[in-house]
Amino acid sequence: MEPVYLKPIAVIESCYKQKFAIPRQSGLAPTGTALIHFLPEFSVPEAIEGLEQSSHIWVQFIFHGIDKEDWSPRVRPPRLGGNQKVGVFSTRSTHRPNPLGLSAVKLDKIDTSSGVVLKVSGGGFLDGTPVLDIKPYVPYADRLLDADHGFAGQEPAKLNVSFSNEALIQLSILQPSHTLNLTLFIREVLQQDPRPAYQSTDVNRIYGVNLLNFNLTWRYVDKDHSLTIHVIGLEEIT
Amino acid sequence: MEPVYLKPIAVIESCYKQKFAIPRQSGLAPTGTALIHFLPEFSVPEAIEGLEQSSHIWVQFIFHGIDKEDWSPRVRPPRLGGNQKVGVFSTRSTHRPNPLGLSAVKLDKIDTSSGVVLKVSGGGFLDGTPVLDIKPYVPYADRLLDADHGFAGQEPAKLNVSFSNEALIQLSILQPSHTLNLTLFIREVLQQDPRPAYQSTDVNRIYGVNLLNFNLTWRYVDKDHSLTIHVIGLEEIT
Repeated sequence: MEPVYLKPIAVIESCYKQKFAIPRQSGLAPTGTALIHFLPEFSVPEAIEGLEQSSHIWVQFIFHGIDKEDWSPRVRPPRLGGNQKVGVFSTRSTHRPNPLGLSAVKLDKIDTSSGVVLKVSGGGFLDGTPVLDIKPYVPYADRLLDADHGFAGQEPAKLNVSFSNEALIQLSILQPSHTLNLTLFIREVLQQDPRPAYQSTDVNRIYGVNLLNFNLTWRYVDKDHSLTIHVIGLEEIT
Repeated sequence: MEPVYLKPIAVIESCYKQKFAIPRQSGLAPTGTALIHFLPEFSVPEAIEGLEQSSHIWVQFIFHGIDKEDWSPRVRPPRLGGNQKVGVFSTRSTHRPNPLGLSAVKLDKIDTSSGVVLKVSGGGFLDGTPVLDIKPYVPYADRLLDADHGFAGQEPAKLNVSFSNEALIQLSILQPSHTLNLTLFIREVLQQDPRPAYQSTDVNRIYGVNLLNFNLTWRYVDKDHSLTIHVIGLEEIT
């Protein structure tokens, strides 16, 4: 069959500036926001007329920032501990023949003051992600009440997250320049445990990732046999 | 931004042989079946290992049998009576910049006896549709309990469907060569009222469409001010 040629219609400005720490499914960090900027050719307010009637939308996008390697028939999903392989089509992994992503997100705001920009939340997009399509979430067709899934049927377990005094002070300084709740957002991102699933805990290691306009650092604390993520600090990126 | 080239991974053998009468959303005719035949390059049993843990899957496909016309910023969705326009991104219309379709279907059977074939039900695919991706339906991420939609929030109203004696006899002859319940399937397809939304009722007109291996004919009957679809007959296509 013939290959198909598709044109990005929009590009995403996201709170996630690196692949590391992006939640593994949409909705796991509902506070995280993204702006979907329509490209000039498709930035036509008429084309989104009526979209305000949708509380949620589907974003069909191209996985951004992945190596252009061959697809892999079997992958190691984090939900299986990262050491068990299953077929790529049984997962939402990026290592697929066609690097197509699919996420349901909340539609917060439609801005047509200059081009077309949609503000959404709950997505797990890397900053700069190209978008191929936007569709309304149609509850009676998309909300399958009888759907079930074996190894990914329930939300993953969440870790506890604590903040250092220094981090709390930095949060209070950074918060006024953001519309989302930074403390809640950081908690949602970290409680998923962003580390690769197969990695063992090294309490001496410091982890870091760029989110929004700051670099976030944390470490793991083993407290009464219960793993906690302790936020060390937030450093503004200038 | 650069265009992307994507390769079909599979092709669909569907109960719907013509665009006319295909349900407007997946799930509206849950009895309708399709076989997703993986193309040789992707027909690797390892790639679907674990898929049996998914009760439902997403099929990302290319709209088949549509004119290669330019996209249209505004379309007339059937849900608004076919005479009111809204933005194409506010609908699941085929007249989009990228002809990408998205349907959640029930996964009935996985057959790896010769290549990879998935048997699914509830989709609204035209026979011959190219598939770009198969993903598991992940309930906690895809089943949005708080989602709402204005003009397409509820399933469309259904018409009554009645069968002529001749149709009932033909059904009993054709049924043994099919695994799906033909009477139920025809009822599901017709109760959506396949006519274009703006068309007025002409009780003298006979409608027909090819489904599975037969041509189905019907007409509209205005019975006590309530519109009923009356199946005239089924003629096997040889």
